[in-house]
Amino acid sequence: MGYLSAMPDPSMLEVFEAPTDRPFLIEHVVDEFTSVCPVTGHPDFGTIIVRFEPSHACVELKSLKLYLQSFRNEGIYYEAVTNKIRDDLTEVMQPTWMQIVTDWRGRGGIRSRVTASHGEVPPCWQRP
Amino acid sequence: MGYLSAMPDPSMLEVFEAPTDRPFLIEHVVDEFTSVCPVTGHPDFGTIIVRFEPSHACVELKSLKLYLQSFRNEGIYYEAVTNKIRDDLTEVMQPTWMQIVTDWRGRGGIRSRVTASHGEVPPCWQRP
Amino acid sequence: MGYLSAMPDPSMLEVFEAPTDRPFLIEHVVDEFTSVCPVTGHPDFGTIIVRFEPSHACVELKSLKLYLQSFRNEGIYYEAVTNKIRDDLTEVMQPTWMQIVTDWRGRGGIRSRVTASHGEVPPCWQRP
Amino acid sequence: MGYLSAMPDPSMLEVFEAPTDRPFLIEHVVDEFTSVCPVTGHPDFGTIIVRFEPSHACVELKSLKLYLQSFRNEGIYYEAVTNKIRDDLTEVMQPTWMQIVTDWRGRGGIRSRVTASHGEVPPCWQRP
Amino acid sequence: MGYLSAMPDPSMLEVFEAPTDRPFLIEHVVDEFTSVCPVTGHPDFGTIIVRFEPSHACVELKSLKLYLQSFRNEGIYYEAVTNKIRDDLTEVMQPTWMQIVTDWRGRGGIRSRVTASHGEVPPCWQRP
Amino acid sequence: MGYLSAMPDPSMLEVFEAPTDRPFLIEHVVDEFTSVCPVTGHPDFGTIIVRFEPSHACVELKSLKLYLQSFRNEGIYYEAVTNKIRDDLTEVMQPTWMQIVTDWRGRGGIRSRVTASHGEVPPCWQRP
Amino acid sequence: MGYLSAMPDPSMLEVFEAPTDRPFLIEHVVDEFTSVCPVTGHPDFGTIIVRFEPSHACVELKSLKLYLQSFRNEGIYYEAVTNKIRDDLTEVMQPTWMQIVTDWRGRGGIRSRVTASHGEVPPCWQRP
Amino acid sequence: MGYLSAMPDPSMLEVFEAPTDRPFLIEHVVDEFTSVCPVTGHPDFGTIIVRFEPSHACVELKSLKLYLQSFRNEGIYYEAVTNKIRDDLTEVMQPTWMQIVTDWRGRGGIRSRVTASHGEVPPCWQRP
Amino acid sequence: MGYLSAMPDPSMLEVFEAPTDRPFLIEHVVDEFTSVCPVTGHPDFGTIIVRFEPSHACVELKSLKLYLQSFRNEGIYYEAVTNKIRDDLTEVMQPTWMQIVTDWRGRGGIRSRVTASHGEVPPCWQRP
Amino acid sequence: MGYLSAMPDPSMLEVFEAPTDRPFLIEHVVDEFTSVCPVTGHPDFGTIIVRFEPSHACVELKSLKLYLQSFRNEGIYYEAVTNKIRDDLTEVMQPTWMQIVTDWRGRGGIRSRVTASHGEVPPCWQRP
Repeated sequence: MGYLSAMPDPSMLEVFEAPTDRPFLIEHVVDEFTSVCPVTGHPDFGTIIVRFEPSHACVELKSLKLYLQSFRNEGIYYEAVTNKIRDDLTEVMQPTWMQIVTDWRGRGGIRSRVTASHGEVPPCWQRP
Repeated sequence: MGYLSAMPDPSMLEVFEAPTDRPFLIEHVVDEFTSVCPVTGHPDFGTIIVRFEPSHACVELKSLKLYLQSFRNEGIYYEAVTNKIRDDLTEVMQPTWMQIVTDWRGRGGIRSRVTASHGEVPPCWQRP
Repeated sequence: MGYLSAMPDPSMLEVFEAPTDRPFLIEHVVDEFTSVCPVTGHPDFGTIIVRFEPSHACVELKSLKLYLQSFRNEGIYYEAVTNKIRDDLTEVMQPTWMQIVTDWRGRGGIRSRVTASHGEVPPCWQRP
Repeated sequence: MGYLSAMPDPSMLEVFEAPTDRPFLIEHVVDEFTSVCPVTGHPDFGTIIVRFEPSHACVELKSLKLYLQSFRNEGIYYEAVTNKIRDDLTEVMQPTWMQIVTDWRGRGGIRSRVTASHGEVPPCWQRP
Repeated sequence: MGYLSAMPDPSMLEVFEAPTDRPFLIEHVVDEFTSVCPVTGHPDFGTIIVRFEPSHACVELKSLKLYLQSFRNEGIYYEAVTNKIRDDLTEVMQPTWMQIVTDWRGRGGIRSRVTASHGEVPPCWQRP
Repeated sequence: MGYLSAMPDPSMLEVFEAPTDRPFLIEHVVDEFTSVCPVTGHPDFGTIIVRFEPSHACVELKSLKLYLQSFRNEGIYYEAVTNKIRDDLTEVMQPTWMQIVTDWRGRGGIRSRVTASHGEVPPCWQRP
Repeated sequence: MGYLSAMPDPSMLEVFEAPTDRPFLIEHVVDEFTSVCPVTGHPDFGTIIVRFEPSHACVELKSLKLYLQSFRNEGIYYEAVTNKIRDDLTEVMQPTWMQIVTDWRGRGGIRSRVTASHGEVPPCWQRP
Repeated sequence: MGYLSAMPDPSMLEVFEAPTDRPFLIEHVVDEFTSVCPVTGHPDFGTIIVRFEPSHACVELKSLKLYLQSFRNEGIYYEAVTNKIRDDLTEVMQPTWMQIVTDWRGRGGIRSRVTASHGEVPPCWQRP
Repeated sequence: MGYLSAMPDPSMLEVFEAPTDRPFLIEHVVDEFTSVCPVTGHPDFGTIIVRFEPSHACVELKSLKLYLQSFRNEGIYYEAVTNKIRDDLTEVMQPTWMQIVTDWRGRGGIRSRVTASHGEVPPCWQRP
Repeated sequence: MGYLSAMPDPSMLEVFEAPTDRPFLIEHVVDEFTSVCPVTGHPDFGTIIVRFEPSHACVELKSLKLYLQSFRNEGIYYEAVTNKIRDDLTEVMQPTWMQIVTDWRGRGGIRSRVTASHGEVPPCWQRP
């Protein structure tokens, strides 16, 4: 894989037991994400959307915040941020499905959005 | 289940006989919900949407207000609030279907939305 | 049924012969509806949408206005208002289909919307 | 039929030969329509949409304007206005299909919209 | 046909070889179109949308501008403008499909839109 | 093909290994693109959208910026810009599918949009 | 005076001691006011703004609500509503200054706003 | 004074030395304030604006948050909330001037705004 | 003074000679500023506006960007950020007047704005 | 002065005699300006507003366009662009007053606006 496993540690992520075994939907929107461009060393700023249906576990919000803050000084591509978050959250929660959208403010006049998913995203969410 | 049964008492919820036995749709939007984060002890603020088709009973609005106000000083996760409201209202009303959406103002830079349902939610409401 | 038949008198509603026997659609939006909460005695304020395809008769607008004004001092639930209007208009007009939407400004921090129908509402109107 | 044939004279409507025999779509929006309420005698104000696919003829715009202006002092129901325009335009043009939408500014706190059609309105126009 | 072939000369339209033989989509929006009403002699102002998939040729933009400017002093109906542009552009480019939409600012209180097409317009463009 | 291969050099484009072999979506929006009209010599200004699902490689953002800046003094048609970008990016990345949209501010009163694609664009993106 | 003193009873208004003797500003906006037109008997709907600097007393909010609700079935002109509210509130609170604005939804196609004041309204509020 | 001195304890408020002795302006906006109505016992929700020019001290933000959260279960009038915050902040900071604006979501159909100040509020802020 | 002089180094700021000795106005808006809360250690996010009339020198934009990026990992109060930027820019440019506005996204439900100035800010900018 | 006199040649600017000797106002807005950053070599994109009251001469619009296009490949600061345009236009037209506003899309996360003037700009334009 194209990103370093030494980066933000997924063990920071804590989960708690889902309050029900009936399917439901959770969406978290993080407006204040920042990491560092691995090519220029300049900071990147973006919004992260985490959308999933839990199977048995939910990510605890404070641990999610600290995990995302730990990207702050990492040099990492947009694409790698998106896939790493998808992989790490998938591993600790094993959700029925998950969609990660990262929306970046722009660098050098280019704004970007990257979308990665896990499992079967329902049709109504396919255009993120 | 992951939330405490000692919390807001569903017996506060009063119902009245549905004015008809023909199917119809009810939606209540509560803009002023507050509870407490069980991890940090800080208050949470959100909007609650209760959407359902009654079978034979409707929840009385003042009792719904008092029931929702009784979360005010409870330490409880977003996910548990959402599922508990769905469970308590389902129990007292036995609706044909129900959808509960909770939309939270944000804590630590993260805004969240949780959606739980009961029965067959019609397709036009699946993206809440 | 859960509402009193002594309430606003459907005989106030006048109809006139539909100007055609070809199907067409009528929508009336009443922004200034008011009735009284049967629990607290405080006034309720709402918007009423009456949408229907006439079979042979149309409701006369001035009589509809007076009929709706006659709820002004009635203590009546949202759900009963909605179903009573649907029932009374259905009885005097026998429309092919009808949809009544009542949208309430809010009481105790809760805004509500109730939707009742008669006959087969076309798919494009199912999310009111 | 429920409206008087003595009203605005459809012979005012002039047509010209369609510039092609291939199907195409025409929409006219008239923002400044006025007629008179037959019950109260007060003026009504509305917007008229005329949408059709011509078969061989198109209505000439100045004659359409004069025809619509001739409703100015007529006491006539919304429903009759809508159906009469549909009938008169259908008769002079014989369009493949036609949809007439009348949207009224409101009288006594009630806004109204009436929709009448001729032939097969394509699905994308069914919610007017 | 209902419009004069002596009008704006399609030979003004120049084309260039499409830069690819793979299908692609071109849309031109002309906000500043003007012609003359053949009945009243007053100027008409409108927006023209030209949307097509080229087969082997694309219209050169400056020649399109000059061609459209040559309608400036022509007395011509909306419907004829629309069909003539469709016909002339179809003849010089032979596109796979084409859709012409003309949207007119209004004359005598009536705004109009006319849509003409050639070939199979994809479903997502059928409501123009 | 209708554009000169001597133009902006695709070898400027650098790629990096995709961080995953699971499908995901990337969208780049470039608001500050400029080239030169080959007919009049006047500058053109537009927005470029690059949307694709990588197979094994992603385009590096700084190299994409420099590549797009190299069109600055090229005399080139809108259609050729669009197809050249599609071809060059397809060649260096071999994406599963790609869609290039160029949206031009207007020249001589005409705004234009050109869309070119590679592979199977999913239905939800077909209206760009 | 042009309005009847038998109308809504100012003794319904309760006050409480101002929490400070330093000047401060209070504004109440009542979106759900209704009274009755003394000429036609039809209901009027409006918004009431009460803006004042207390001298030593503040109006208690629940009593203000009940006082305003007591206009519900009064036949009274817009102008009289506005002046009566100003007079009654002035009498029970003796504010340093007060401004009453009533904004009416419209009747017979006419929307109205009436503004009455007491004492010296500061310049920044003179345009209400 | 009309509010109880036993309420939220101003000693919770911490200050730090202003980073400069040159005049500057600080504005804090708290969207999630809640207290309790002393008459009905129902919760109130509002937004608080704290605007001031420090003389030598600034309020520390976390202590301000905790101080404002401590109103959560207090039964207290809007007017008293506003004046108490003004008094407590004035005491601990001795600002050159201060303006407190409280904007309340509404109770019983009435929205309210209360403004209290200390010292000379500059003219540009007098309409809050 | 309340902030540490060891923080971001003003010598990073480069200036160039103003292109004129006639008065003119420069405004820079930095949407992507981040520093660290000195109390909680959590990141802060804000927008910085730098507005000034140069006397003889202008700050070079790339050096301003690097200077502002160097706050990224500093624990520093909002008030100190604002005053330090004002002091450092004043020192290197000696502008006729300067206004620094920092607008912070919010932490613990509180959004803040801090404004510091140097020299005589013209009246039209006094409400920032 | 800080910009090179060898840059875009003011002799490109042509004027024509003002059609009146009574004062009037002219504003030109150029959305498609581009020049080059003298430090990084990357392109800058901005909008230029030229606002003036002519004394006896007006700038000819096509010559203004060509003059502004001639900045396309110049390495020049924002501040110098603004002042040079002000100086050059002042010289050829001798307007009663002039205001030049340049609004730049942003580079490295910083958006900028520069305003230069000549003569007495009326108060209503002083905040540009």
